[in-house]
Amino acid sequence: MKYNVPVQVPVGVSNRHIHLSQADLDILFGSGYKLTEMKPLGQPGQFACKEVLIVAGPKGVIQNVRILGPTRKQTQVEVSRSDSFVLGLQPPVRDSGDLAGSPGCVLIGPKGTVILKEGVIIAARHLHIHSTEAEALHLKDKDRITVAFGGERSVLFQNVIVRAGETMALEFHLDTDEANAGLLKSGDRAYIIERCEPEAAEVTDAPVFVAS
Amino acid sequence: MKYNVPVQVPVGVSNRHIHLSQADLDILFGSGYKLTEMKPLGQPGQFACKEVLIVAGPKGVIQNVRILGPTRKQTQVEVSRSDSFVLGLQPPVRDSGDLAGSPGCVLIGPKGTVILKEGVIIAARHLHIHSTEAEALHLKDKDRITVAFGGERSVLFQNVIVRAGETMALEFHLDTDEANAGLLKSGDRAYIIERCEPEAAEVTDAPVFVAS
Repeated sequence: MKYNVPVQVPVGVSNRHIHLSQADLDILFGSGYKLTEMKPLGQPGQFACKEVLIVAGPKGVIQNVRILGPTRKQTQVEVSRSDSFVLGLQPPVRDSGDLAGSPGCVLIGPKGTVILKEGVIIAARHLHIHSTEAEALHLKDKDRITVAFGGERSVLFQNVIVRAGETMALEFHLDTDEANAGLLKSGDRAYIIERCEPEAAEVTDAPVFVAS
Repeated sequence: MKYNVPVQVPVGVSNRHIHLSQADLDILFGSGYKLTEMKPLGQPGQFACKEVLIVAGPKGVIQNVRILGPTRKQTQVEVSRSDSFVLGLQPPVRDSGDLAGSPGCVLIGPKGTVILKEGVIIAARHLHIHSTEAEALHLKDKDRITVAFGGERSVLFQNVIVRAGETMALEFHLDTDEANAGLLKSGDRAYIIERCEPEAAEVTDAPVFVAS
């Protein structure tokens, strides 16, 4: 389904970051530690923290990885595919919270170290949208849409997951690889151009071109 | 103009790399130095060299940046946008060889250092194609096309520059940011789906969505 006009949405670029459980926070920063809010994020109640950690994998280390608050049930580390090559990990592209079978890593904090068994993912790009707005656009939670961004590196992101809910604020989230590929930055405006049919996002096999 | 079938083309992912002039090669590795071929590239006569350099900018350093041969008239450093943030530079997105007004950097080799005045660019993604193949596809040098890649991070790259010529071998070149955004790797197959009209690649301003 195509929209008769492209629908403008604000862009939020996610750099690598960590969501921590309170148990892991206790180990890394000391028992009963509370995260320090530095800056609110686009989604209500979410914030960037003053605290950062070292993330280590079998091939390399990334320092100063920001923690986002509040704490969650399970610790989750979101990296870009570029980051994954530095760390030497092969994380899957996943929705937030869907961590089963993902690789682990080592988190190093000022008071302790956590050896994560699983929880490293590449975040699937997604649109946060309030239920009321979603309804007006004939979208529902878990739909897929195509989002366009113009300019000299003009790009169409297909297969963007819709995350509709009462607590969501309109924002198109993508990671630094995707942002750099299209020269996007936080605060830019992108455009929803269509709701994908489930099978439409996939380009299937096509004939190899041979010069005549 | 859309093709009646998508045209399959092989993908070549370009990591950061350096093309050197013989004068700069002399400074960095010693007078009269010859580059050592390590691996041929997709384009005839081009090769990856054994030699690497340190690239430095005002904010950071990247080590082990591969040199590609043969030598060229002017030294050119191709980085991703991710790399540009590490270096602290703001290179433009440019075709190879179009270096006027681009930032410089410092190149450090085993025998000397070169302070480049200009030459750092983010390579514009492009399709190498032989003139005969281009003609069969109704494409000419400097046309723009849209290239699609499927899968879970399915993406359409618009505004891809066609570089048609007698010495070109069919290959869609993009950088590591673009490859990671779409989960592409060298040797994958992407699909040309249309030739862009000059103004069609740009998504112009659209109404901001407001919930009703």
